Amino acid sequence: MAEKRKFDVIVIGSGPAGGIVARKCAEAGLSVAVVERNGWGGVCPLRGCEPKKILADTAHAVVRARDMAAHGVTGDVGLDWPALMRFKHSSIDPISDAVFRSFERRGAATFHGAARFTGPDTLEVEGHGSIGADRIVVAAGAVPRRLDVPGEELLLTSDDFLDLDPLPESLIFIGGGFISFEFAGVAAAAGARATILHRSGRVLKGFDESLSRKLVLAMEAQGVAVHTDLPVRAVERHGDGVLVRCADADGGERTFVASAVVEGAGRVPDLDGLALDRAGVQAGPHGIEVDANLRSISNPRVFAAGDCAATGLPLTPVAALQADAVVRTLTGKGPATADLTGTGAVVFTHPPLSAVGRLEEQAREQGFEFDIFEGDAAGWAEHERLGLSHAGYRVLVERGTDRILGAHYLGQHAEEIANIFGLAIRHNLTRADLLAHPWAYPSFGYTVRYMLG
Amino acid sequence: MAEKRKFDVIVIGSGPAGGIVARKCAEAGLSVAVVERNGWGGVCPLRGCEPKKILADTAHAVVRARDMAAHGVTGDVGLDWPALMRFKHSSIDPISDAVFRSFERRGAATFHGAARFTGPDTLEVEGHGSIGADRIVVAAGAVPRRLDVPGEELLLTSDDFLDLDPLPESLIFIGGGFISFEFAGVAAAAGARATILHRSGRVLKGFDESLSRKLVLAMEAQGVAVHTDLPVRAVERHGDGVLVRCADADGGERTFVASAVVEGAGRVPDLDGLALDRAGVQAGPHGIEVDANLRSISNPRVFAAGDCAATGLPLTPVAALQADAVVRTLTGKGPATADLTGTGAVVFTHPPLSAVGRLEEQAREQGFEFDIFEGDAAGWAEHERLGLSHAGYRVLVERGTDRILGAHYLGQHAEEIANIFGLAIRHNLTRADLLAHPWAYPSFGYTVRYMLG
Repeated sequence: MAEKRKFDVIVIGSGPAGGIVARKCAEAGLSVAVVERNGWGGVCPLRGCEPKKILADTAHAVVRARDMAAHGVTGDVGLDWPALMRFKHSSIDPISDAVFRSFERRGAATFHGAARFTGPDTLEVEGHGSIGADRIVVAAGAVPRRLDVPGEELLLTSDDFLDLDPLPESLIFIGGGFISFEFAGVAAAAGARATILHRSGRVLKGFDESLSRKLVLAMEAQGVAVHTDLPVRAVERHGDGVLVRCADADGGERTFVASAVVEGAGRVPDLDGLALDRAGVQAGPHGIEVDANLRSISNPRVFAAGDCAATGLPLTPVAALQADAVVRTLTGKGPATADLTGTGAVVFTHPPLSAVGRLEEQAREQGFEFDIFEGDAAGWAEHERLGLSHAGYRVLVERGTDRILGAHYLGQHAEEIANIFGLAIRHNLTRADLLAHPWAYPSFGYTVRYMLG
Repeated sequence: MAEKRKFDVIVIGSGPAGGIVARKCAEAGLSVAVVERNGWGGVCPLRGCEPKKILADTAHAVVRARDMAAHGVTGDVGLDWPALMRFKHSSIDPISDAVFRSFERRGAATFHGAARFTGPDTLEVEGHGSIGADRIVVAAGAVPRRLDVPGEELLLTSDDFLDLDPLPESLIFIGGGFISFEFAGVAAAAGARATILHRSGRVLKGFDESLSRKLVLAMEAQGVAVHTDLPVRAVERHGDGVLVRCADADGGERTFVASAVVEGAGRVPDLDGLALDRAGVQAGPHGIEVDANLRSISNPRVFAAGDCAATGLPLTPVAALQADAVVRTLTGKGPATADLTGTGAVVFTHPPLSAVGRLEEQAREQGFEFDIFEGDAAGWAEHERLGLSHAGYRVLVERGTDRILGAHYLGQHAEEIANIFGLAIRHNLTRADLLAHPWAYPSFGYTVRYMLG
């Protein structure tokens, strides 16, 4: 068909943010084009949340069965990595087609190729020529952050890790963020020797520090070595493997060798190549600068949503709510904002670690007066039943108002604990409200009574 | 020591309800006596929630590992019943002593023996003589319901099932309630042939009917046979086993044979022997008749809380909140009521089934106008990752107000889904509020967006 050149809305990126904007704007009757230079669907379903959760769920079923050997679970439980990879492919590989069809079905035009701004409302798409629109939504997502060290080309990215087959005998993960923790746990469960190297003394920034330390103990019990205060200086080939040179605190050097080394240092907005300057769109290290309505502060025809917008955590629920807000604005129901109060963040380790609301240090900086309800949770019958021996919680409750300022939890169902406290934070429920709730029993929601009682 | 004879408060029963009342009243400075005729701690920790959840968690780790064989989980995973029983004993056996000490530590007097009213404010305790109090709280709990059929003495109770060792080769569970479903699933996971016989066509009363049917399919896939419309007429010895005769719909008979037969027909208030009439305390089939403050409608010095009170579902969270309310009244902060809005109920099968708020039929009877958001959830990636192939949801949303009237869910984390919707129901959150929430991703809380979207 002859390609249309001018649209109501062009969306750059087909991940959770871009996908929602494209589908919902098309459903609302706008003419929509969506541009994707990688697989349709973006990072979350193809190279992020979905494949990593497949790996994590399977690894954790294995670790759970092992944890519960003393409870009567028998059998030499293991993880067949090639079989896991086959299942992963069977689940993930069809997604791109399905996402592509979701656009076609709604009449959105699709352009596969890299987009580059040529003016405030025009783009050049690789292989497709020029297109333009009244509004352009940049939802280009993020790419793995690269270390800037000699030998960097020897490192695998987190994208690469998700496709490793066979699994190397030993793996080093550089960076002590959630990606390294999740992947190292999976690799260890599957029988690899796994090591995490982190540059500073504080792993898992964004999560409670004392619970992060407890999680490190849990990881070590699962066979993952975690080393801190070791910035990487260089990476080299070493026989069939890779050697990592780190600077130690005494000015000396420590070296580590593994079959493969993965950069797990997080992601950065994927804006290189978009030529944002041609459209007068301002961006910083955290992404495109936007106002409360996700509109570019420097080009009113451009919006940004998801990981490439310099607001909100780089998380799928944030992308989804930002996309919902952009849709409301573009379909004339706006200007709309995305209220992100109560966003839960989770490290899907065994056990998982979650954070919602403020960290202790943030609450202090913001001048709140609060009490901390904290404790170890490994002794709860709920955890002993599962053979989980590392768990804990820290909940910040404002003095006077009794409101929840932040909630941090390491243990079973951490993601749902974040959801529950997230609802409390968003809707101003108090400690008394949570203590008076008739939580299902037994459930981890019920443990709110232990935490706040 | 010389036993004190007159107290501010006597509590009959040391389970979740009685335990809370006794401890908190003692902490508030009242003189308290607590009377228990069985193990200290009551049904929930000794013969209910706690041991059953130990069995269920272990069985489900086994079923989960088997479900995920195609995802790469290897090993011939099984369940060593004697080892499970040893773990159960190691976990449950210390509870009675700990509960006993929790009373002693707070200065509450403890009387072990059966209590019997001798007047409106006096009791005779077997082996201890007469005691009296200004206020008497009956928190006597519930006992397994007995079938009234010939051969009943051949049946095991649910209490007996929790101590079976070795596990019989085959088991029949009479009654299609949550106890039978939970136990049958555990028995099947451990390798026994398990059969549920239910008298009517409607199993799991109190839970959504269509999701209950879906759960029956899940149970059957795990090897549990579920037969409905088969009231039991008689039970007989049959070689080393037991034979159950049922009346079938055509006026004929069907018989079933197993190594052991368990009555799983629920529990009834444990009030026989208390001589409530001597205290002028009225009770019906659902327990002691109380007003909104849990006070006996016929004797103002007597309160009831937990399973033996004729109000609220016979669930631990209900007992705990009723106990909290009685404590507030008795310590002069009342008169207090227990707001049970949003109480979650869960069948801990694989997957679990939960209910919170109204059933469809209740919402209709109550005259609500509502829409039903319903669907199958087995195809969600969240469930496919776990190898779960039976799941679904039904959420009732009031027209006009957009409030949640009831939420029913079969699938992973059902107990937390009940907690989340319970919070919504209790605090009048709307469908729009739940759609706008930044749920952690992936999590089952996030699936609220799929359910209500």
